[in-house]
Parts: sequence; structure tokens; C-alpha cells
Amino acid sequence: MERCKILTPLRAVGERKIIKLILERLEEMPQMPIPFGDDVSAFAIDDSQLMILKTDMLVGKTDVPPGMSLWQAARKAVIMNVSDFAAKGVKPKVMLVSLGLPRKLTREDVKEIGAGLNAGAREYGAYIIGGDTNEASDLVISLSLFGMAKKGEIMLRSGAKPGNLVAVTGSFGKTTAGLKILLEGFEAPSEFCKFLVESVLMPRARLKEGLALNRTKAVTACIDSSDGLAWSLYEIAKASKVGFLINRLPIAEEVKKFAEVKKLEPLELTLYGGEEYELVLTIEPQLWRSAEKTVKKVGGMLLPIGRVTAERKIFLEIGGRRRVIEPRGWEHFRNARA
Amino acid sequence: MERCKILTPLRAVGERKIIKLILERLEEMPQMPIPFGDDVSAFAIDDSQLMILKTDMLVGKTDVPPGMSLWQAARKAVIMNVSDFAAKGVKPKVMLVSLGLPRKLTREDVKEIGAGLNAGAREYGAYIIGGDTNEASDLVISLSLFGMAKKGEIMLRSGAKPGNLVAVTGSFGKTTAGLKILLEGFEAPSEFCKFLVESVLMPRARLKEGLALNRTKAVTACIDSSDGLAWSLYEIAKASKVGFLINRLPIAEEVKKFAEVKKLEPLELTLYGGEEYELVLTIEPQLWRSAEKTVKKVGGMLLPIGRVTAERKIFLEIGGRRRVIEPRGWEHFRNARA
Repeated sequence: MERCKILTPLRAVGERKIIKLILERLEEMPQMPIPFGDDVSAFAIDDSQLMILKTDMLVGKTDVPPGMSLWQAARKAVIMNVSDFAAKGVKPKVMLVSLGLPRKLTREDVKEIGAGLNAGAREYGAYIIGGDTNEASDLVISLSLFGMAKKGEIMLRSGAKPGNLVAVTGSFGKTTAGLKILLEGFEAPSEFCKFLVESVLMPRARLKEGLALNRTKAVTACIDSSDGLAWSLYEIAKASKVGFLINRLPIAEEVKKFAEVKKLEPLELTLYGGEEYELVLTIEPQLWRSAEKTVKKVGGMLLPIGRVTAERKIFLEIGGRRRVIEPRGWEHFRNARA
Repeated sequence: MERCKILTPLRAVGERKIIKLILERLEEMPQMPIPFGDDVSAFAIDDSQLMILKTDMLVGKTDVPPGMSLWQAARKAVIMNVSDFAAKGVKPKVMLVSLGLPRKLTREDVKEIGAGLNAGAREYGAYIIGGDTNEASDLVISLSLFGMAKKGEIMLRSGAKPGNLVAVTGSFGKTTAGLKILLEGFEAPSEFCKFLVESVLMPRARLKEGLALNRTKAVTACIDSSDGLAWSLYEIAKASKVGFLINRLPIAEEVKKFAEVKKLEPLELTLYGGEEYELVLTIEPQLWRSAEKTVKKVGGMLLPIGRVTAERKIFLEIGGRRRVIEPRGWEHFRNARA
């Protein structure tokens, strides 16, 4: 295999294009139950059952901000993966973990990682049943999750219909504000500093909400918001061939205050963040109340933020002013955090 | 979570102790179909079927010698994992891949990696159905494999019985010799230099052999030899509570010559290497012929190298001289290749 001479560095390529380059080289399995590009993958065990699979890697350099312990980092690696299962309404049963450990780590560090992995898995009712350990320059925690689902009983990205309501399972902007505190040294009034930082260090996956919502049959499309709210909307829009009219910005109260104090743009914090593990869903309007009630019953909430449109554009319309939501969010290689 | 003050560096801990430290922190799933420490993990789907899972990570720094292309490295990441499925007699169906890519890679590099992954998967009849891309300092290719098996129809490490024959699916020492050429600059006569180097760059997993042997019911225990022949024997011995008397050194002809020319110890090259993907098996003596015939039919071979003993020691006895085979092989963190 000869090396081509056109040397475009990955920084100029960006994560999404990299994925495309790889996908173009993969022979596609006939009759894939879930197409490439959704939050999880699937394999048909028989006529009615699917094995659901997911892998996601945490890398120290990009995914572990200063102030996050190794226990928290290991737990976060689990949360990142569970969140994708939550978005599909599937319960993770077992996990494998593949570790890349830098030599500078100590015996106690390894214990912390083991305990964090276990804590994350058990928090969502799953078990770690195997893995692999390697030496690497970065801390690398690659998780793989497995579960089962009945065919047709998965919340995909592709089912949103014009007229559906759009909802989220919580408010946004907390992790972006928290990361500004941890990474950029922003100071915040103590009454909400801890809360914002905690949202980064101890994220939660909306598994209860996802499982409950899946049972209602009210959801037509779902995604988790790990690349930011705007990006999540664009992903559903692309997969479902629809647009959105968002008429409510689900900004967290603390983020609103943080933005005021720090003179930051609240819209920016809410729409274009990342590492926020809420669910973004489209819902049949006639089943809205049932969905809302179900989520409340499991201790969660459902915030309506707008509706699905046939026009394939994504607008934010607040106070009579309409503007375009931009297709941007967190992207590896392009966004430099290290 | 407070950080402990005893700072033992990982180099002094070693890979196997690291795995132990992590396992001690994991809550064990009730009724694990395959215990921790075998080559694969399993999850019971129902009373008769198991989902078989495996994850293994390739790290550029330790697993990709100079001279290996990215296409070959990506393919090797697949082989490493398929080899463990081969050792259990299970066909891999689908794979997920989680990539850590250094920024210095180019667009063409990414294409090579995608093509190498696909080539590896298709070579063994499997498909890559999902994955994840990240930025990392090292090249990291973390694969996860999935397949299905009937309960009780997996070749574990734990079934070897005294009196069983021990066999391997090919000769040893080629990769160790090949790595000496690639890593330490050893020169070798051209008639076998290419062959030895190829064993490193283009390893093969013994999947055909493993699947065929599993069907014969002749195999009582099996492992792949990725950590070296000596280490593989120790792993079966530990899991099966037996010992071995090895009376034939399965050294490759080319390795014998290489050792002669280079004044190296042939025993060292054969027993204590690594990254060799043969199967090491114990076999019911009365089913030996059937096993041998079956392997030949799929184009492979079965070399008898000794027998299982009740005495829990591992000896090599050749030409009337008996010596202990040592429990060593490739170990991350302790063996420094980088």
C-alpha cells in the first residue's frame, strides 16, 4: 500500500470528515438494523431481537479537564457511553473496558480508575465483565456497551415528523460554564460555582428518562446532546429530513446568572456547548402529556423547546426575533482543548 | 476521593498486577458464563445462547514496530482480537472500532487505517458496524468483537486433564526473530528475512482451525499464544490446575537457521516471544486423529508438543534433558519496547 503524497493534516480535516473517510472504506454489513451514524450499532440475533452495541473512548488530553479526579474520569467514560444507550431507550447490560495507561500513573491511580469504572457501571445497573490493559502516552479509557432490544423498539435519530414537539430532559449551558471555570480560570460567585463545576465532574446519563420515554411510544426521534444542543438538532434534522423552530432556550438559571456576571452570551453557552448528557427528543403532540407524566414519574423532567418543521432549516424565534441556529458544536481535532 | 500517598509507579507494578488491582474493584456479575481472565467474556442471552465479547487495544508506541504501515497496524488490531475468538472456537460477527488519532496523521493515513480495518474484518468474515474517533497522542485502535455461541460450546482455558495431548497450530519464534530484525536492526540472510518480517507485519489468526477444532469436541482447553508459548502454557496450567511435559520444541525452520547465524538461543526465541497468534491446545488422546484430520481439512496443521501432567509444573524434556520452562513472556509496562 503506497502512501499518497497529499498530506492534509487532521486538524484541517476535522472529526466528522475523518469518520466519513473511514466509513467510505468499510464494506457495509447487509441489512444493518441501525444505519451508520446513529448513536449505537445493532446486530440482529434472530427475527425479533437485536444486540445493541456502542463504543466510545475517553482520552485524558481532551476529555479530562483539570480538577477532575481519575475516579471521576473513569466514571465519566461510562456515562458517555450510557448516555447513548439512554438516547435509544436501551438498557446497558454489560461493558468491556480497554485501558491505555501512562507509565507515570501509580498503583493508587489504577485503583481509583477501577473503582470509578465500577461506580459508573453499577449506577446504571450494568456490570463490567472484561477488558484489556495497555501502556499509552495518554490516559485512554475505551468502553464498549452491550444490551438487547426488540426490533423496532429503539428511538432512532430518523423518525421526526413536521408538527412533532421538540423537548429536552434538562437545562443547558452548565457544563460549558463549568468548563470555563475549570479550563479558562473564570471565577464564579460561590453560590453557583460548585454547581456548574459539578456538572462537568459528575455528569449523569438520562437512562431512566430514556427507558421510560421509549415505553410511551411517544418519541419519534432522539439523540443525546454530548456535542451540544445545536449540533444535536442538526443531527436529528439530517437523519429525519426535517427542520426545527425553537421558541424556548432551555438555559439553566445558574448559567443565565453566570453569563450576566461574566458578560458572556447566554445563547452561546446554551446552544454550542458540549459534554452535556441531556436527551433531545421529538414527540407526537397527542402523546405529549403521557410522555411528560411518565418522565416525571421516574424523577425527571421534559422541557418543551419548539417544534419540528417541514422546512429543513433550524431557527430560534424568541421575542418575535428569528435567527438561524448554526451547525456547530464540539468537534475533535478542530476544537483544541489540550 | 482522596489520593493515597503510596506512589508505586506502574513500571514496578506490571500489567498482570494492574489487571488484578482493577478486577478487585469490580463488582462481579452474578453467574458469569465465562470467568474473568479467559480470552473472551460472555453474557447469557437466554438459557442456551451466549453473547461472546472481546476488546483489545493496539497502541502505536508498543504494538506497531518500525516498518509496519498504518494499513498493517489497523489490520493487526483486528487480528489480535480475532485470535482470541479463534482460541475459543467462536466466529466473530461484528466489530466496533474506537480510534485515537494523533494530530500529525494525514487524511491519507486515515484512509489507510479505514482500509486496513475493513481488510482485517472481511478476511475473517466479520463486519465493522460502528465506532468512535478521538484525538490522542498515540495511535490507539481499540477493537471490540461480538459473536454468539451455544452454552457449553466454548473452548475455555480451564478444561485440560492429565493425559491430554498438547498441540499447537504452527511453529514458533518467527515473530520474535522478525521483531529483532525490525526493532534491533539484526540483519538476516535474504532467503528468510522477508518471511520472518512478514510474520510480524501480516499476522494471521487461526480462526478456521479454532472453529473446526471446536466442532470435533476433542479440545479440552485452548488459548492463543499472543504472550508467548511459555506464558500460554502457564495460563492453561493455572486455569486447569495441571502441569505440562513438553517434549518437542515447535521451532520454525527459518528461526532455527536465524538463531544459528545470529548465535541466539533457539529456546528463547521459541518459548518466550510474543505477538504470535497460534493456538495452544490440549486434546483428548483418543480424539487426536480426528482433530488432526479436521485441521488438515481446513488447510491448517496440528503439531503435538507434549502432554498434560497432574504435577503442576511445566518442564521441557528434550534429548533426555529436563529443564523448567519459566513463567515469562511479553508484559506491558515491564517490557519496554518504546
